[in-house]
Amino acid sequence: MFRPQIKVIDCTIRDGGLMNNSNFTFETVRAIYAAVCAANVDIVEIGYRNSKEMFSPSKYGLWRFCDDEVLKRLTDGIEPHTRLAVMQDAHKAVPEDLLPKSESVVDMVRIATYVKDIDKAIMLANNATEKGYQATINFMAISHVLERELDEALQQVEEETDVVACYLVDSFGALYSEDVDYLVHKFQRYLKTKEVGVHFHNQQQLAYANTIEAIIKNANYLDGTLYGLGRAAGNCPLELLFGFLKNPKFDLLPLLGVIGKEVLPLQKSIQWGYSVPYMIAGMLNRHPEAAIKLQSLPEDDPRRTDFVAFFEKMASEDA
Amino acid sequence: MFRPQIKVIDCTIRDGGLMNNSNFTFETVRAIYAAVCAANVDIVEIGYRNSKEMFSPSKYGLWRFCDDEVLKRLTDGIEPHTRLAVMQDAHKAVPEDLLPKSESVVDMVRIATYVKDIDKAIMLANNATEKGYQATINFMAISHVLERELDEALQQVEEETDVVACYLVDSFGALYSEDVDYLVHKFQRYLKTKEVGVHFHNQQQLAYANTIEAIIKNANYLDGTLYGLGRAAGNCPLELLFGFLKNPKFDLLPLLGVIGKEVLPLQKSIQWGYSVPYMIAGMLNRHPEAAIKLQSLPEDDPRRTDFVAFFEKMASEDA
Repeated sequence: MFRPQIKVIDCTIRDGGLMNNSNFTFETVRAIYAAVCAANVDIVEIGYRNSKEMFSPSKYGLWRFCDDEVLKRLTDGIEPHTRLAVMQDAHKAVPEDLLPKSESVVDMVRIATYVKDIDKAIMLANNATEKGYQATINFMAISHVLERELDEALQQVEEETDVVACYLVDSFGALYSEDVDYLVHKFQRYLKTKEVGVHFHNQQQLAYANTIEAIIKNANYLDGTLYGLGRAAGNCPLELLFGFLKNPKFDLLPLLGVIGKEVLPLQKSIQWGYSVPYMIAGMLNRHPEAAIKLQSLPEDDPRRTDFVAFFEKMASEDA
Repeated sequence: MFRPQIKVIDCTIRDGGLMNNSNFTFETVRAIYAAVCAANVDIVEIGYRNSKEMFSPSKYGLWRFCDDEVLKRLTDGIEPHTRLAVMQDAHKAVPEDLLPKSESVVDMVRIATYVKDIDKAIMLANNATEKGYQATINFMAISHVLERELDEALQQVEEETDVVACYLVDSFGALYSEDVDYLVHKFQRYLKTKEVGVHFHNQQQLAYANTIEAIIKNANYLDGTLYGLGRAAGNCPLELLFGFLKNPKFDLLPLLGVIGKEVLPLQKSIQWGYSVPYMIAGMLNRHPEAAIKLQSLPEDDPRRTDFVAFFEKMASEDA
């Protein structure tokens, strides 16, 4: 599926950072950045640009803040085939954290938001575009929104911003392909002058399949992460996405190399990928927090594998 | 997606047996059988009925042969909500290994075949139906067939057998949803009096998604395994499939229970599930054997994670 409009975004460090408070070493992030550039990925989102008032730098790593001087060191000496992005949470970031584009190596700012925070998101997106960056707005937890509110928010994005793309984000890994069709089509109906982006989680092993479905329906901004590293069951694996996209500019080998050297060793400290607790959360359309907590119990705690009790608890909390 | 014609087949022990020479303990198989019955799965395929001339019973476990007396002990005292199936490989089984149905607890015999062995498969399928069993014919390695030969074989299945279903088996985990559409439609065109079945492998994390795609296209025989246990990256996870199918007769809880107690502990001795070597094999439409071999190297062998070298070797062998 070679379509020149498609942009592939690696967000390994940004989404993976939700599992370790963004505490990746500089060397790991530099190796991943270099590999993603060598592979000709279009955009790499290296972390958050969130407020130090809301996140303590003593607890959270460099990649929760992505200070401009850190990013200059990160990118120094690496050919920038790949544009650099950071994410701001609508409810955890402030406009002052963005310098003018001329003073920064950042190219794109992605605003993550719940539908209810759309006005904050628009303010931050417009702050970014006014300062010279490209921007996107990414609607999180899309499986929990009221459609009337989503419709109104999409209309606002179309009319009140200059973002290049607007994303549907399946934070809970709850969507099936038919839901993806429906939502991509809805986004396209409102967003006449913007691209549609997609970001899926793998709680039900559907992140890659849903990305393919979205590609077929003409979504053009596609998020993936190396070996799927990301919150809970993780994301659409970038290496798989390269297999489906036939754009000859992509080079899979640098991705395979860095997965073996840098990403697999992270499994010692971060648990991501398919598991029964994540599957239960996805199937019930729930936040993965309780599943993450269950999996953080000691190895020999029998509650870790008492999936019947976990299911019953999760299902009853639905009531 | 509640459709009364749908039949769900658990083949955990049969397909998983390809990873350990069918050497599961009697207790494990009994626990899985009981759970699958309690969950109201339609059919359980508990192993192979292959020839002891071709497989040595000193190397292969009970579930490579599924002797009738073993199956009687296995099923004794468990309410048989679930029909019992065994698999015969067209090129590794003989008709004499099937007793008349009246002397056996087996209900269904599934014949696994390459397209080139279709005449042996038809002979074995007709042997089974004449002896009173239901039968299916399952075309393995469907991503490697010449279409003209497949067309002819499907015509033969329709005209020369009384099988209840005929399967497309994506042994290499190479198919995308568009391929699934195409093949299910082709099978349906030839098989006017039989159901279409699907069996997918998860090398590209598409086994469940492709099963959903096949359901939407009206395939009605659906294979899955507990926690995806099966060759290489494994199969469509049965617990996920239960989430998509809304038939109220299914009970997810017994599956969750037995996964925690019996299936997860098997991870100590069997490596299945998504990995980069399996992904490479699937993407290149290759047998997973080389990937299985790579993953059986000692933990500290650097070749295990040199995915660049593995990819280059696999890609060059394509030439």
